[in-house]
Amino acid sequence: MTEGKKNMNLPLITLTTDFGLSDEYVGVMKGVIYTICPTARIVDISHNIRPQDVRQAARIIFSSYRYFPAGAIHVVVVDPDVGSSRRIILLEADGHLFLVPDNGVASLLLPRTQKIYEIDNTTLYRHPVSPTFHGRDIFAPIAAHLASHLAPHSAGSEIARDAPVRLDFAVPSICGNIMRGIVTDIDHFGNLITNIDKERAGCFCSHDFHRLKVHAGALTIHGIVSSYNAVRRDEPLALFGSRNLLEIGINQGNASTKLRLGLDSPICLSI
Amino acid sequence: MTEGKKNMNLPLITLTTDFGLSDEYVGVMKGVIYTICPTARIVDISHNIRPQDVRQAARIIFSSYRYFPAGAIHVVVVDPDVGSSRRIILLEADGHLFLVPDNGVASLLLPRTQKIYEIDNTTLYRHPVSPTFHGRDIFAPIAAHLASHLAPHSAGSEIARDAPVRLDFAVPSICGNIMRGIVTDIDHFGNLITNIDKERAGCFCSHDFHRLKVHAGALTIHGIVSSYNAVRRDEPLALFGSRNLLEIGINQGNASTKLRLGLDSPICLSI
Amino acid sequence: MTEGKKNMNLPLITLTTDFGLSDEYVGVMKGVIYTICPTARIVDISHNIRPQDVRQAARIIFSSYRYFPAGAIHVVVVDPDVGSSRRIILLEADGHLFLVPDNGVASLLLPRTQKIYEIDNTTLYRHPVSPTFHGRDIFAPIAAHLASHLAPHSAGSEIARDAPVRLDFAVPSICGNIMRGIVTDIDHFGNLITNIDKERAGCFCSHDFHRLKVHAGALTIHGIVSSYNAVRRDEPLALFGSRNLLEIGINQGNASTKLRLGLDSPICLSI
Repeated sequence: MTEGKKNMNLPLITLTTDFGLSDEYVGVMKGVIYTICPTARIVDISHNIRPQDVRQAARIIFSSYRYFPAGAIHVVVVDPDVGSSRRIILLEADGHLFLVPDNGVASLLLPRTQKIYEIDNTTLYRHPVSPTFHGRDIFAPIAAHLASHLAPHSAGSEIARDAPVRLDFAVPSICGNIMRGIVTDIDHFGNLITNIDKERAGCFCSHDFHRLKVHAGALTIHGIVSSYNAVRRDEPLALFGSRNLLEIGINQGNASTKLRLGLDSPICLSI
Repeated sequence: MTEGKKNMNLPLITLTTDFGLSDEYVGVMKGVIYTICPTARIVDISHNIRPQDVRQAARIIFSSYRYFPAGAIHVVVVDPDVGSSRRIILLEADGHLFLVPDNGVASLLLPRTQKIYEIDNTTLYRHPVSPTFHGRDIFAPIAAHLASHLAPHSAGSEIARDAPVRLDFAVPSICGNIMRGIVTDIDHFGNLITNIDKERAGCFCSHDFHRLKVHAGALTIHGIVSSYNAVRRDEPLALFGSRNLLEIGINQGNASTKLRLGLDSPICLSI
Repeated sequence: MTEGKKNMNLPLITLTTDFGLSDEYVGVMKGVIYTICPTARIVDISHNIRPQDVRQAARIIFSSYRYFPAGAIHVVVVDPDVGSSRRIILLEADGHLFLVPDNGVASLLLPRTQKIYEIDNTTLYRHPVSPTFHGRDIFAPIAAHLASHLAPHSAGSEIARDAPVRLDFAVPSICGNIMRGIVTDIDHFGNLITNIDKERAGCFCSHDFHRLKVHAGALTIHGIVSSYNAVRRDEPLALFGSRNLLEIGINQGNASTKLRLGLDSPICLSI
């Protein structure tokens, strides 16, 4: 509880957006937060989500939140419907708070969610509210008030746990002795991150990862290794990365460029 | 006043530069700041100002500062004349401090400025002063001393309010029933931000925004909407954005790429 | 000592990586740090080190650390051998701490190093340790524990000062009346930064910098200036930049693009 108490005194807000880092948008959100909650710590998770890519944002926040202290407030603004009647929701999940547009970006968090609120306390907003920048006028002030110990139920009304929009995410399929997945993300190094998680792949191959063959484009990789340098420089490899997802990489090289594979490229496993 | 007092204890410095985020320049400025003022909070507004684009920096800081708490210290280092005899000035404006090179980057702030100082207290500089990096050796330490409650008059000598360099900024012109503006910025989403503000456009059309036609290249857009998703996906639109400036966008698309328009492209309004 | 004491209470951690800013990797490291040390201040030096470019990281941290307060903890994660048996080492040098992979990234710091520890206290790691992301599971928690006043010898075992991997860095050569160097870095402005430092060049020309000729590709520049605007706009120039290294620039232009020179291009001095 000591840890929890410390965090109460030093609230932490994370930001995940598709705003990029060239415009003033992110800085302005931080200005609004600090105006309301001067003691907040603010961490940028990413501002380079592909524009309007709600699924990418969903995967990033789901992969990240658990590394932050309990009580952290995670704000995600990837919000193609800003200014429409789409709701803004606050989730209590796994000891963390998530303030997000109700567009499916919370889909992966819903199984771990205890309570959900629809944000409707307009007295907490910045006014006038710009119909194009709720990040500044709604998300930032609400997050800052929560960081200043506002109770979630004072920011909005509780709604049913099955009320939020749920997006489908492609899951691997098995047909005979082949498991079919796709590339869902390409990281800064050019590693191809797939939707095939270690647990699912382990069941498929009876946890004998050495006998797996990974098919990526014209390439077949034999066996799964545990680190990039398990193969020679410039050689391709397959491993389960820091998200516990199957990745295709090239030791000290860019797999996406060299293999000419990108988002949605099919990746298959066979035994 | 409680808010002001809190901010005195937790000073806030914003940084706006054209330094980019690949080199050590921004990090080193923060190191200098924290060495002098360990309790400062530092917010990056943008480090991706186009190199030497003083006007872009002027627009960004003018659009941003009001969202930060009163008492914030805004440092702008877009400084093509670094190492020359150009002055460094400190402005007190609207309850904020602005530490900038005297190259016109403060032009838009001057109408709101109460006092201006020429920074000349060399005892506060880092020595030796590099003639190529005043950000590290002058701006950062002066900002940090101000954040540590140094009075502005201890950093420099007051100068006349009309002394600083003023740059001209293109303003829309009206000829008959046509208002002519230009694209001044393109944001991360590809939205084309113009120099036509809502107030000016409102006077032009007697606040009947529905009858306005917006001409952008070969395209004519009928009427102003309030949010991006007021039109179908991939359709163009015109709205007043979060800076209260006319923007041409494409719902969930990149207007600059799709319309092949860029900086300085003419944008016209007609009734 | 007051300053030192202040820093003890407000520990400072810097981060230098090749992780980029699009993925969650940097944000997640900060989450781990704040979970262990809520009062840390964290400064990004650069996350855009070229992938796996250990030498670039070595130059950046060497050029940066001295601008941070004594006691700062500098974490460098450019780590192509992550998951192998390469060591992680902690250096005490010049009043600062450096937590780095033992791959030569500390080479330039070794002459100033008092003590070196091999990190081996696995009880401080996050578990399970991902073989692909020691930044999250080893570097971040160790740095945070050091920031929380863990003594270095509690994180690892002292090793000999000559034990770490040392990389060679190209140094300028002199042949007759010609000094030959190379471009080692290109900054955000396109300035070509060389490995020719001011001291070495000064000895070469008996500190009469005006008589030096700088040869860069087909171009010869006569004399060294002190600031970019010492020549006319779009004209090339040579100066000693903020790292005290010879740079080839173009006033308000991009030297790399305009001169078509890049990394490893030869740059010569003659008298």
